[in-house]
Amino acid sequence: ALKRRAFEHKITLRVGRSHGIHAEPTTMGLTFARFYAEMARNLTRLRTARDEVATGAISGAVGTFANIDPRVEEHVCAKLGLTPEPISTQVIPRDRHAAFFATLGVIASSVENVAIEIRHMQRTEVLEGAEFFSMGQKGSSAMPHKKNPVLTENLTGLARLVRMSVIPAMENVALWHERDISHSSVERMIGPDATITLDFALARLTGVVDKMIIFPENMLENMNKFPGLVMSQRVLLALTQAGVSREDAYAMVQRNALKVWEHRTDFKEELLADEEVCAALSREQIEEKFDMDYHTKHVDTIFRRVFGES
Amino acid sequence: ALKRRAFEHKITLRVGRSHGIHAEPTTMGLTFARFYAEMARNLTRLRTARDEVATGAISGAVGTFANIDPRVEEHVCAKLGLTPEPISTQVIPRDRHAAFFATLGVIASSVENVAIEIRHMQRTEVLEGAEFFSMGQKGSSAMPHKKNPVLTENLTGLARLVRMSVIPAMENVALWHERDISHSSVERMIGPDATITLDFALARLTGVVDKMIIFPENMLENMNKFPGLVMSQRVLLALTQAGVSREDAYAMVQRNALKVWEHRTDFKEELLADEEVCAALSREQIEEKFDMDYHTKHVDTIFRRVFGES
Amino acid sequence: ALKRRAFEHKITLRVGRSHGIHAEPTTMGLTFARFYAEMARNLTRLRTARDEVATGAISGAVGTFANIDPRVEEHVCAKLGLTPEPISTQVIPRDRHAAFFATLGVIASSVENVAIEIRHMQRTEVLEGAEFFSMGQKGSSAMPHKKNPVLTENLTGLARLVRMSVIPAMENVALWHERDISHSSVERMIGPDATITLDFALARLTGVVDKMIIFPENMLENMNKFPGLVMSQRVLLALTQAGVSREDAYAMVQRNALKVWEHRTDFKEELLADEEVCAALSREQIEEKFDMDYHTKHVDTIFRRVFGES
Amino acid sequence: ALKRRAFEHKITLRVGRSHGIHAEPTTMGLTFARFYAEMARNLTRLRTARDEVATGAISGAVGTFANIDPRVEEHVCAKLGLTPEPISTQVIPRDRHAAFFATLGVIASSVENVAIEIRHMQRTEVLEGAEFFSMGQKGSSAMPHKKNPVLTENLTGLARLVRMSVIPAMENVALWHERDISHSSVERMIGPDATITLDFALARLTGVVDKMIIFPENMLENMNKFPGLVMSQRVLLALTQAGVSREDAYAMVQRNALKVWEHRTDFKEELLADEEVCAALSREQIEEKFDMDYHTKHVDTIFRRVFGES
Repeated sequence: ALKRRAFEHKITLRVGRSHGIHAEPTTMGLTFARFYAEMARNLTRLRTARDEVATGAISGAVGTFANIDPRVEEHVCAKLGLTPEPISTQVIPRDRHAAFFATLGVIASSVENVAIEIRHMQRTEVLEGAEFFSMGQKGSSAMPHKKNPVLTENLTGLARLVRMSVIPAMENVALWHERDISHSSVERMIGPDATITLDFALARLTGVVDKMIIFPENMLENMNKFPGLVMSQRVLLALTQAGVSREDAYAMVQRNALKVWEHRTDFKEELLADEEVCAALSREQIEEKFDMDYHTKHVDTIFRRVFGES
Repeated sequence: ALKRRAFEHKITLRVGRSHGIHAEPTTMGLTFARFYAEMARNLTRLRTARDEVATGAISGAVGTFANIDPRVEEHVCAKLGLTPEPISTQVIPRDRHAAFFATLGVIASSVENVAIEIRHMQRTEVLEGAEFFSMGQKGSSAMPHKKNPVLTENLTGLARLVRMSVIPAMENVALWHERDISHSSVERMIGPDATITLDFALARLTGVVDKMIIFPENMLENMNKFPGLVMSQRVLLALTQAGVSREDAYAMVQRNALKVWEHRTDFKEELLADEEVCAALSREQIEEKFDMDYHTKHVDTIFRRVFGES
Repeated sequence: ALKRRAFEHKITLRVGRSHGIHAEPTTMGLTFARFYAEMARNLTRLRTARDEVATGAISGAVGTFANIDPRVEEHVCAKLGLTPEPISTQVIPRDRHAAFFATLGVIASSVENVAIEIRHMQRTEVLEGAEFFSMGQKGSSAMPHKKNPVLTENLTGLARLVRMSVIPAMENVALWHERDISHSSVERMIGPDATITLDFALARLTGVVDKMIIFPENMLENMNKFPGLVMSQRVLLALTQAGVSREDAYAMVQRNALKVWEHRTDFKEELLADEEVCAALSREQIEEKFDMDYHTKHVDTIFRRVFGES
Repeated sequence: ALKRRAFEHKITLRVGRSHGIHAEPTTMGLTFARFYAEMARNLTRLRTARDEVATGAISGAVGTFANIDPRVEEHVCAKLGLTPEPISTQVIPRDRHAAFFATLGVIASSVENVAIEIRHMQRTEVLEGAEFFSMGQKGSSAMPHKKNPVLTENLTGLARLVRMSVIPAMENVALWHERDISHSSVERMIGPDATITLDFALARLTGVVDKMIIFPENMLENMNKFPGLVMSQRVLLALTQAGVSREDAYAMVQRNALKVWEHRTDFKEELLADEEVCAALSREQIEEKFDMDYHTKHVDTIFRRVFGES
């Protein structure tokens, strides 16, 4: 789903934000592609972790095979699709389980990452995307105008629940001698809880991403809240390349940015009206700095890195 | 060090314990071999985790390469021995760091595992092993007779310290949009703290294992605290194989075990004096059940699994 | 500082949000008052926790006072302003320390709570408040137009760092017999780290709140992004009180809300142009529903609850 | 139960251990009294935490009481035995819940503390106490001689499960604006899970303590594993008080302790045979140092501190 949405919005312009503050243009497709790459890494991690715990042991009360031949273990493990544990005690060593639950915790944190992004997109002031909301559906019972991102908020909480199993699983590693049973109650709870919760969360997240509504026009509107201001870095670079000292260039850009900030005027117009700026850059050069294509020219390259050629 | 100590005490007999209670004989070498296998797994995990975080990104303020060519990133990463991050924002995605710190947490838990085993060995009542204690060294300042396992107790605490970085590293994954800087203060503390603490812990643990003193005679003495009792399972199996019902066999073994438990008599002697037992098993059969070699016959096999042929 | 800012903006109107979505009007002062109340609770918690750990013990190697009189303990504790520990071993019981660090973790979470609120306020799209930014100060080195909430992002990270000491402090409680020294390395790190980090965080937060810039006009602008829509609940209630069935009322409100949502028209105007609505409510009744004072009428009551009479 | 067992074994001698190593004599009753005092503290903490969360709010969609009078809240809270929340949003502030779950985590750690002590007592080599084991009960199915501390091992695991809810509860504090619903899924799981698990654990622990078997004669045997050695500190002090330099005294004690350590001879006999020691202390003085009453003389005082006069 992430891949499909990524290609769908490959060049849908959107403002990139650092610190929650507008920075430079990017595209909605890059956001989806980024989550796709993260989840692809998680799939690899999960496979490794699953292989790690898929071992079996039938080695007797303290692991010496005194009363049972090692070939029995090999035979049963082969039947069950497990690897025989090279050396066990009464139980399989619990560092394997710790690594498994730690991996679930990492994946849950990625779920939270996607969920938080969508919750931000759905804020009333941002409104660049939203969880699907069917026509007949009622939102808030008390407030008929509301459409809430309840699924992704729920996913944020589920991530915490999966993560909370990591430390107990690690505390389980240090069993006394050839085993004590302190790990058992822990695993009986976190085993089903963490795996089922994460499975549910991943399924829910897939559904949300698959059906979520994207508002490209709001993305443009947000980007232009302070018209042209997101291009300030490019103008700064152009000025310095035209021979203006970095210090002066910074001052020129900042004073015009301030006007935009205060009066919501157009940054390009302010620059074109600034004599010092115009002394350094021609009208064509200034206008060219506000070309959006400049920011999307490497999207293809990045997509090839993430999704391969195709 | 674990490997050397494992081979040194490959067949040093020791009682295996489950629940802290004597179960069946095993060997000290198997304990070391078990830790060796666990640490070998950890080395693999650490290499994977290190590769995962060894990526670099120079992709601009929001990751679009608008003002910098992707080839710069490739060139610099190549120089630094890093893999270019396929898709980044202003920063490298933090799921990589979460996986790294999670791995440190697993390794720390294994350190705790070994440390707890040694602390148990050094208990006054057990005294099967001890941290090295040089001749001139003073133990407790107030109590001249004491030799304390202070290094392994310290390692138990250090494990907690490394583990505590796992959850913050996971909470760092969900950054707002193209980055917020909340992860930075966290990483500036847990980055050096967790890696240095774990490195110190591993070095200290290696030293402890390398020089620790083993008391084979105490192991035998402990095993014989209730003489012969650890063989109860074997006798039980023999009785059932001789045609006695499992229920009767259990009763026969338990009543004789009880005498040993209460009067510290010899389990073998009690069995030889029990008419019902002797009706089912010959004197030779009973005596053969107390043969220690029975329990070590597969040690070679296990060592081959762990250390390979050699 | 929270109290001063609360009174300053006691009736500064601001839209209340649930799920990040506009709900109903509230005031900025209520937000500050809410944090004030939370921090007042934290102060009480901290005092309780500090009293809990302020005990002393000089009771000998295992806590029996065999070689030292209890009166020595009483005398020294009195000099140091500590309570004598009623029953100790070689050390003071560690449940006291666990409760102390748990309290630090709660307080740190409240710091995060305030920090996240301010980060949301400073988002470009929201811009209802901002960390103070002095005139000469440069923002982003690359992007001259940016003012980033770096202090509150930093506080978000610091909260994670303080919280991470809670679990190790709890793992420290179960010492072996009359003490083992595993708690020591943990406390030597989390003791200074958690207290200093939290102290720094609280000082930084106080400074941020004290000097933060509030944009009341932006609050009004945000509230009116979809003009009048936040009053939908009141209209719904009025319709039902006027005898319209809840189902019909919901439909009436929703269809007019939808127009506002799609065309950014004024909700009140839409209602006044809706024949069915006008059949149930007079023009005066409808207009009265958009009176802002309705939402602030109990602010005084709430302030009295929080700050007492004054 | 802890109180009853404490008085029962008020002066049952037992060796005190630091670092798992024999230190000086103490009594079994002091161990129980110590746990009693810890649990009494926990009861106070739990009551405080329960009062903290027993608040109610009916203050409307964002907490302004716009559509509902504060008197409704007061009335309903009074009916339910709750305190009205002085200032709420759509929900009650979550620092209250964080403090509550943190308290559960501290109590769970105390449960672990008692459980670990009992598990140590039941070790085959120590055997100073044991979980009750009814006559007909079977122990290990495979090993008829075994009595395992499975209840206290289980409690060790349950403690980890309760503790794991602390961090998610703290992560729940920072809700977005007037509430987001991310806390809800977390509380729906940890709410019942943590409270039920802890309630079960406390009930189980009470049962274990109530019925556990104490072996006073084994305590004496353990204390005398190295006969008289636990008195080394007292002899050291006596020598210095008799005018021997601390350095010389330490050497005298250590050389005799070493003999006991190696040959399990009697420490008192060794001292009486040491000319230098006898030059400093008379026979009576030496013998007096091995008087056990010396170590229990303040037990009454400690009991009064813990349980009050009675």
